[in-house]
Amino acid sequence: MARILIGVMGPGEQATAADKATAFALGKQIATQGWILLTGGRAAGVMQAASQGAHAAGGLVIGVLPGDTRELMSDAVDIPIVTGMGQARNVINVLSSRVVIACGLGAGTPTEIALTLKLHKPLILMYASGTLQSHFNQLTRAPVYTAETVEAAISKTYQFLELKSELLDR
Amino acid sequence: MARILIGVMGPGEQATAADKATAFALGKQIATQGWILLTGGRAAGVMQAASQGAHAAGGLVIGVLPGDTRELMSDAVDIPIVTGMGQARNVINVLSSRVVIACGLGAGTPTEIALTLKLHKPLILMYASGTLQSHFNQLTRAPVYTAETVEAAISKTYQFLELKSELLDR
Amino acid sequence: MARILIGVMGPGEQATAADKATAFALGKQIATQGWILLTGGRAAGVMQAASQGAHAAGGLVIGVLPGDTRELMSDAVDIPIVTGMGQARNVINVLSSRVVIACGLGAGTPTEIALTLKLHKPLILMYASGTLQSHFNQLTRAPVYTAETVEAAISKTYQFLELKSELLDR
Amino acid sequence: MARILIGVMGPGEQATAADKATAFALGKQIATQGWILLTGGRAAGVMQAASQGAHAAGGLVIGVLPGDTRELMSDAVDIPIVTGMGQARNVINVLSSRVVIACGLGAGTPTEIALTLKLHKPLILMYASGTLQSHFNQLTRAPVYTAETVEAAISKTYQFLELKSELLDR
Repeated sequence: MARILIGVMGPGEQATAADKATAFALGKQIATQGWILLTGGRAAGVMQAASQGAHAAGGLVIGVLPGDTRELMSDAVDIPIVTGMGQARNVINVLSSRVVIACGLGAGTPTEIALTLKLHKPLILMYASGTLQSHFNQLTRAPVYTAETVEAAISKTYQFLELKSELLDR
Repeated sequence: MARILIGVMGPGEQATAADKATAFALGKQIATQGWILLTGGRAAGVMQAASQGAHAAGGLVIGVLPGDTRELMSDAVDIPIVTGMGQARNVINVLSSRVVIACGLGAGTPTEIALTLKLHKPLILMYASGTLQSHFNQLTRAPVYTAETVEAAISKTYQFLELKSELLDR
Repeated sequence: MARILIGVMGPGEQATAADKATAFALGKQIATQGWILLTGGRAAGVMQAASQGAHAAGGLVIGVLPGDTRELMSDAVDIPIVTGMGQARNVINVLSSRVVIACGLGAGTPTEIALTLKLHKPLILMYASGTLQSHFNQLTRAPVYTAETVEAAISKTYQFLELKSELLDR
Repeated sequence: MARILIGVMGPGEQATAADKATAFALGKQIATQGWILLTGGRAAGVMQAASQGAHAAGGLVIGVLPGDTRELMSDAVDIPIVTGMGQARNVINVLSSRVVIACGLGAGTPTEIALTLKLHKPLILMYASGTLQSHFNQLTRAPVYTAETVEAAISKTYQFLELKSELLDR
């Protein structure tokens, strides 16, 4: 049976120390549950921190890279998927993840958040302010979930995975 | 010399009557300036209305289609670009447009708005509330422009086209 | 009603003088029929020559570019479609063309030929040797057509466009 | 350090019994070397057989799927990469594989072979006739390698992986 991939998305160079600490903890918890971590694969910010966290717990990390080589890849990526498609690779990240967790907000993160909602994938926003959540709820009819702690995000992920709806299981 | 392509993005089935009226007027004005209209190509909502507006003014319309056939295409599209790439085609829409004008907010529009900002393309939001604008300004360091009227959007587009910066001219 | 796009594919830097002369004549004839020429858009070889031929006859040229800017584009391209998708843009070239004409053989041309057959699009090979044709006929169940002259290619294109089959009209 | 991905490409529904037997043995040997198998992921032909072979040896299998869901996936795929990009996903298969092994010839295989050569990736053709090899050598300046046995293919793969050239290591 296919393994469960959980995507963690967030800023690269613009990530804050808090974003990275949360991403590390998320990666670690994802690996601990036996899930596979999927990120954008670069050696920066949330991608890098989540990958290192998953590694620290002995997990497997997939990096879906924008360029046509493995350059700039995080060395905590086990499985580089080299797309050569730039930003279009975000579609692959979202479609391949059973649940997408957004951690922090960089220039590209809104794209991934919006794509997740558009493609009807379960989305968890870490630490999102009420304003941000109400903004997304205004933009989409799909519900947006927020989590204040990594534990809450993991617990929410289990709930999403149990949903048997065809949409969520895509 | 290459013609100037202006993208108009917005909701399909979810478009309001006001969205469609604005899109029709935008398409008409874009064609009147001698520019080429680029849309997502489907026979629905803002795409359809903008295409019909451009046609009404004798303009040329490019439709960048998500599927792998011309099915569901607006019959006001002159040049169907068939991508077979689903949502990834939004990257092509944004990269190919010299300026992107977002008109109304459907499930997919935030993706196109966020992509436009991420790819450093000039963006004009029609009728955006101050709240929405401040949200986008919070998400990105690129400025987001709003226009209350079609005339203002066209005038802003001329300003963007005159900017000689390498980024904007991409 | 949507205009008819005809794709001309072939080598860039590796094109021979004969390839380029044929491509120029093809572009000219395509424009003369009222069709729109679609090429890979770069300022090299068959793409460049076909685009110049279409321009010489007052035609419209679409260039589907691999990069994420208009750099390296032929200045005979009217409508740059900027994909940022590298080789994946060949899928768009083939899906968007009602008929694909391959002119000469460079490193990338076999990809476009193979894609055309895979996607069940009508294919015309210019000047293909019997060996090459029999090779392709061995690889695919779709028929491969060859043309010894530009006139024959245009005449064959008309035949393809008259076919009403769903497959060919995609 | 990133794991080594080896791609096995070949026909789906059109695969012969011999193609499938070879693909199974290739998958098994790839897993035995500690490499990860990458295929097109569908439950058919060479993709399916190679995946089952890798599983039989306890290996890990990545399936890069053309659709936007996991439908039609081989149940021997561990890690589904869902692209939603149809044929454009072949670019990802080739870019992500350190070496591509083509096994049998279906309608899509020439695309993958041609892409591999175009992208300067090492290519091994199983059981290719001299005619076919000379055809590919005529189309490309990159060398095409053939292997008569699975053992020879594995041995050739080791040689490719030892090459330190930037091109091959991409």
